[in-house]
Amino acid sequence: MILKNDLILRAARGEKTERTPVWLMRQAGRVLPEYRLVRAKMGGFKELVETPEFACEVSIQPVDILGVDAAIIFSDILVIPEAMGLPYQMVEAKGPWFEKTIKSTADIAQLKIAQPDDLHYVMDAIKLTKKELNGRVPLIGFAGAPWTIFAYMIEGSGSKTFSQAKKFLYTQPEAAHQLLQKITDSTINYLKGQVIAGADMLQLFDSWAGVLSPEQYNEFALKYISQICDSLKDIPFTVFAKDAHFARRAMGKLNCNTIGLDWTVDIKESREMIGNTKTLQGNMDPCLLYADYGTIKNETIKMLKAFGPDRHIANLGHGLYPDLEKDKVKCFVDTIKEFRF
Amino acid sequence: MILKNDLILRAARGEKTERTPVWLMRQAGRVLPEYRLVRAKMGGFKELVETPEFACEVSIQPVDILGVDAAIIFSDILVIPEAMGLPYQMVEAKGPWFEKTIKSTADIAQLKIAQPDDLHYVMDAIKLTKKELNGRVPLIGFAGAPWTIFAYMIEGSGSKTFSQAKKFLYTQPEAAHQLLQKITDSTINYLKGQVIAGADMLQLFDSWAGVLSPEQYNEFALKYISQICDSLKDIPFTVFAKDAHFARRAMGKLNCNTIGLDWTVDIKESREMIGNTKTLQGNMDPCLLYADYGTIKNETIKMLKAFGPDRHIANLGHGLYPDLEKDKVKCFVDTIKEFRF
Repeated sequence: MILKNDLILRAARGEKTERTPVWLMRQAGRVLPEYRLVRAKMGGFKELVETPEFACEVSIQPVDILGVDAAIIFSDILVIPEAMGLPYQMVEAKGPWFEKTIKSTADIAQLKIAQPDDLHYVMDAIKLTKKELNGRVPLIGFAGAPWTIFAYMIEGSGSKTFSQAKKFLYTQPEAAHQLLQKITDSTINYLKGQVIAGADMLQLFDSWAGVLSPEQYNEFALKYISQICDSLKDIPFTVFAKDAHFARRAMGKLNCNTIGLDWTVDIKESREMIGNTKTLQGNMDPCLLYADYGTIKNETIKMLKAFGPDRHIANLGHGLYPDLEKDKVKCFVDTIKEFRF
Repeated sequence: MILKNDLILRAARGEKTERTPVWLMRQAGRVLPEYRLVRAKMGGFKELVETPEFACEVSIQPVDILGVDAAIIFSDILVIPEAMGLPYQMVEAKGPWFEKTIKSTADIAQLKIAQPDDLHYVMDAIKLTKKELNGRVPLIGFAGAPWTIFAYMIEGSGSKTFSQAKKFLYTQPEAAHQLLQKITDSTINYLKGQVIAGADMLQLFDSWAGVLSPEQYNEFALKYISQICDSLKDIPFTVFAKDAHFARRAMGKLNCNTIGLDWTVDIKESREMIGNTKTLQGNMDPCLLYADYGTIKNETIKMLKAFGPDRHIANLGHGLYPDLEKDKVKCFVDTIKEFRF
């Protein structure tokens, strides 16, 4: 199917675009009253993720309502540990929680390598969403980066420091590598499945990059991200590692198209460190969208100018916060869509 | 009183030292069974902070038990909001909680500028600790940096994003500056009081620096840190802003002696950005102390060599975690004390 709007794919490949494309992390979510309605009909977050019709509906909402240049499939990075044998619960107002966690090589041996079939509900949601989008905009598939998935599998929940996951790196480095390799193999299978199901573009989220030292990040994170990039060369691929300011030079050498940036890094400095062969994605502070409309417009234009007209996909530097106003979010999107260099 | 060990003060001033000095953030705390005993006798954390005899006892414990080159007064950064009119509770396993928070300029107008007398229990604890230390090692006083204190006063508790505090910066910037100035004035009074009471050295903790953009950090954080540094020029002064990788060049221009680093920044790069007129403090990942003794020794020596023999105060890149083993912590300290360039 020919895409009517392929701005994001062209920007990812480094082609000229008539304007900067835009999408938002966590755009399908609580910031939309329409999402909250669908969510209220369901038992909970996981039921929404696991029911293709509903996942499809909320994935398309931001395209209709916010006018973004891509949909992202509504899902969760933790479907991978679950498919490998560690089920999780999403506890309201608390976040994810795993009953079983990984403590030893014996635990790791019991995990399976996930296959696309294990996540058929995601594949079905992608197929359905592609069909319903009907070529309007590209559909982004995604997965968590191995280190972040590993961190949850050891820690069993969110954490400020992920000190237990890091303890595992320091005390059982070989077992850590075994587990990271299993997660990586599962993720490659999963992402390949997403491409077959119809994803036009992929993103890897390394949400907890920022708790590692640069050295550990090289050894326990980038090595595996690199394997994933190398296995998915034929599709526009984005790596977004939150708080990984220290890894920018190394990111420039990954076999991918786009590097996501958070708002704590300087745009020009990041371009210099990452080089000109990558598209940059980001990097507005989500809290800007609490400001008045004038401030949102001004700051958004300032960001666009700092990135320049080429190789930029506009986005926030992290996900939308649930209590942001839809109209303010739309102001950010509209400002980008109206701006011309 | 003449100090028997003034290594840390000399290192801060850039003088040659026979070896690298060491102390640890959160060294007086749950990592020591001796601390847990004192703590069990008290009603809770705040009672410990507010009772000079006990604060003194736990401040000195790490000097006796771990052999560190400085004591730091046992206290909390949130004594300042309390002295200004916002009392807090320390909720076990949850962290700080404020019943009242700041929402408007009217709320800000009601806050007082704290005076040393409002925090007499800290001053008394410092006097007593100085007396009991009897010149063995210097005593470090401290306060939270204005942005971090502001963040708690708005948010009312800890937070992953401090999005409400940041919202205040975006929506009420003038009120934010008013509040930050009041916090700054209070902090200057407080730190001057600590010096009079006997503190030999001071440290400012900007625990939540990492949630701000570089631009916001300049406007809402560094400006006030700079005022504090300028007001306390006659005493070795350390600024430690966690996750403020983006502010390193600016930190090099502060009117202080020492800049603290966390483990996510490269040591040589940081030296280059901060310049040679500052002592650097840090920056080991606290999780290293979960590793075996051999790894702790090797990594510690690697860190010492990366910093080099001059202008370095060895420390972790953040506070000790409560579940670390005392003997592993001691191994880190001993490795530093035994190492010679």
